[in-house]
Amino acid sequence: MAEAVRLGSAAQGTTAPNPNVGCVIVGADGAIIARGATAPGGRPHAEAIALAEAGERARGATLVTTLEPCNHRSQRGPACTDLILESGIARVIAALEDPDPRTHGEGLARLRAAGVAVELGTGAEESRESMAGWLLRQKLGRPRITLKLALSIDGKIALPSGESKWITGEDARAHVHLERAHHDMILVGRGTLQADSPRLDVRLPGLEERSPRRALLSRGEAVAGWEMLRAPEDVFRLHDVNDLLVEGGSATATAFLAADLVDRILLYRAPIIIGEGRQSVGYIGLDAIGDAHGRWVARDGRSLGIDRLEVYERVREG
Amino acid sequence: MAEAVRLGSAAQGTTAPNPNVGCVIVGADGAIIARGATAPGGRPHAEAIALAEAGERARGATLVTTLEPCNHRSQRGPACTDLILESGIARVIAALEDPDPRTHGEGLARLRAAGVAVELGTGAEESRESMAGWLLRQKLGRPRITLKLALSIDGKIALPSGESKWITGEDARAHVHLERAHHDMILVGRGTLQADSPRLDVRLPGLEERSPRRALLSRGEAVAGWEMLRAPEDVFRLHDVNDLLVEGGSATATAFLAADLVDRILLYRAPIIIGEGRQSVGYIGLDAIGDAHGRWVARDGRSLGIDRLEVYERVREG
Ligand SMILES: NC(=O)c1ccc[n+]([C@@H]2O[C@H](COP(=O)([O-])OP(=O)(O)OC[C@H]3O[C@@H](n4cnc5c(N)ncnc54)[C@H](OP(=O)(O)O)[C@@H]3O)[C@@H](O)[C@H]2O)c1
Ligand SMILES: NC(=O)c1ccc[n+]([C@@H]2O[C@H](COP(=O)([O-])OP(=O)(O)OC[C@H]3O[C@@H](n4cnc5c(N)ncnc54)[C@H](OP(=O)(O)O)[C@@H]3O)[C@@H](O)[C@H]2O)c1
Repeated sequence: MAEAVRLGSAAQGTTAPNPNVGCVIVGADGAIIARGATAPGGRPHAEAIALAEAGERARGATLVTTLEPCNHRSQRGPACTDLILESGIARVIAALEDPDPRTHGEGLARLRAAGVAVELGTGAEESRESMAGWLLRQKLGRPRITLKLALSIDGKIALPSGESKWITGEDARAHVHLERAHHDMILVGRGTLQADSPRLDVRLPGLEERSPRRALLSRGEAVAGWEMLRAPEDVFRLHDVNDLLVEGGSATATAFLAADLVDRILLYRAPIIIGEGRQSVGYIGLDAIGDAHGRWVARDGRSLGIDRLEVYERVREG
Repeated sequence: MAEAVRLGSAAQGTTAPNPNVGCVIVGADGAIIARGATAPGGRPHAEAIALAEAGERARGATLVTTLEPCNHRSQRGPACTDLILESGIARVIAALEDPDPRTHGEGLARLRAAGVAVELGTGAEESRESMAGWLLRQKLGRPRITLKLALSIDGKIALPSGESKWITGEDARAHVHLERAHHDMILVGRGTLQADSPRLDVRLPGLEERSPRRALLSRGEAVAGWEMLRAPEDVFRLHDVNDLLVEGGSATATAFLAADLVDRILLYRAPIIIGEGRQSVGYIGLDAIGDAHGRWVARDGRSLGIDRLEVYERVREG
């Protein structure tokens, strides 16, 4: 399952509107026979790719997948449950049930009815993490939104002049590029477009192809090469984005936070003090410090060169 | 030596103008016979206390101390080298030479000349850390200055209204009280005195007696119970303070940072976003981001309940 999760995670940001599933086929001796991850654009599915690779060797083997195999035939391809039954797979281990109402347990039920041994739940937490964007979209009808901030110790994003190059060092910037590769879309505000003309591409060896779609938050005129969002709430219209990365600037971060449309904060903290400068976040509707508590939890923290990455997640009920 | 360093560290903030030295006397079997740390106010010295406790058992034993024993007789007590020679101690292990020109190697030389085995350098780094305030004062003629900040993720110290209770939780606040106990003096600006009427005392079981002296940064009228500093540069007039803790607010932090009079930052970071609010630091003379780099290095980071402590130290040449 660890390898299936790894495959699924690596495909994050490329498979929308479909989930980024990972799948391996394991032989009787425990060795991995074949691997698959949802292909760019969402088809073929991970199971289909792994089964094609395994061919005849799938007979009697175990298929391990991060998500319940789909049970709905579509114009874009056959249902994975059909492929599994045809292949002669003897056992299926799935981490999560598919929340999609078209499958939702029916895929596993059908396999069971056909005599395939079925297990559900192994690696559920890791799989949930690997598909966090898609799962959140199934639930809330919008992408999982990550806000990236590069801040000084004292929480500034730029000098009063707007100069923000460079607050963080190369290791932190390389990490941003890696995160970009795992998002379907990146958004900035018009102020940042004008100040920095950011390319928002992925400049990492082997991942150049994974530069996500670019979106602009602005009430103004459209700009060629950029998809337009007129307000943060427009994220509910993005039906083919699982993971959205908001890269600033301050007004944009503030608008998303004020609308409670941030699920995760990637904070790159440089060991510098800027003093007077542009603040990272403005008024978000907070009028008492007590109300600020309990909304965010620190999930991860690590050094990136001389900088530090802090990851916060929004605490949401249910 | 580890025990001597521990004893010395525990006395930090109570011994000014003298160094906070720790000392143990070890018998032939390696067991600790006696312990000493510089007494509150700086006298008796650590060695004198340990020797008094050891009495006759000092004969032939080893004295381990974080700082070279003093060699100058004073009205306040005899020189420690005299006491050591009288005691019959056979061996002295000292971590550091005394930078005080009245001793500066002469204490150890005199012991050596009298036939005592002398070793210098064991535990030098830890001992230097334990006496950082006093050592810095010997070199720069002012206390070691620590700036404490309690900040939100986005670097705010209060709401626009000034409300700052509470940004951090109980564990972080208890840690502040522990730090207070290890400083000779605490300073706030008049704005903080007026807004928060802070007591600045140590509210920790067993350490209540260790509440440091209180100082106020203000050009205005003196306040009973507070020593007055008219400007950050007044720290050069504090001849009996090894460790000074600056607890804010924003104008005060800015004034000390702008004067380059901060050696260490204790940053308590709460997992909250305040948005519009009072910034932690204002204009400190920085006009290009490049100039902000290379001045601070992250030394320590750890969780304190849901908050996080980050310790930064000023990088100074030489
Ligand atoms: N350190 C970092 O992490 C980081 C990251 C990015 C940028 N920056 C810096 O941040 C600065 C730019 O920040 P900024 O605050 O000036 O600009 P910004 O957030 O990039 O863009 C502001 C613009 O976004 C649009 N916008 C904001 N809220 C909106 C809403 N609720 N609905 C619709 N549109 C909305 C508006 O565009 P229209 O006026 O066109 O309607 C607004 O003028 C630059 O100095 C840049 O270097 C720093
Ligand atoms: N989160 C935290 O860590 C923290 C800690 C402490 C305070 N706070 C908050 O910070 C706010 C207060 O901050 P603040 O910036 O308004 O006030 P402040 O820094 O506490 O005090 C400002 C006053 O300090 C004096 N001062 C400042 N710079 C000086 C200089 N260079 N030379 C001489 N005197 C100088 C002046 O006093 P005179 O006008 O009398 O000359 C000035 O009015 C409060 O809301 C408080 O709750 C937060």
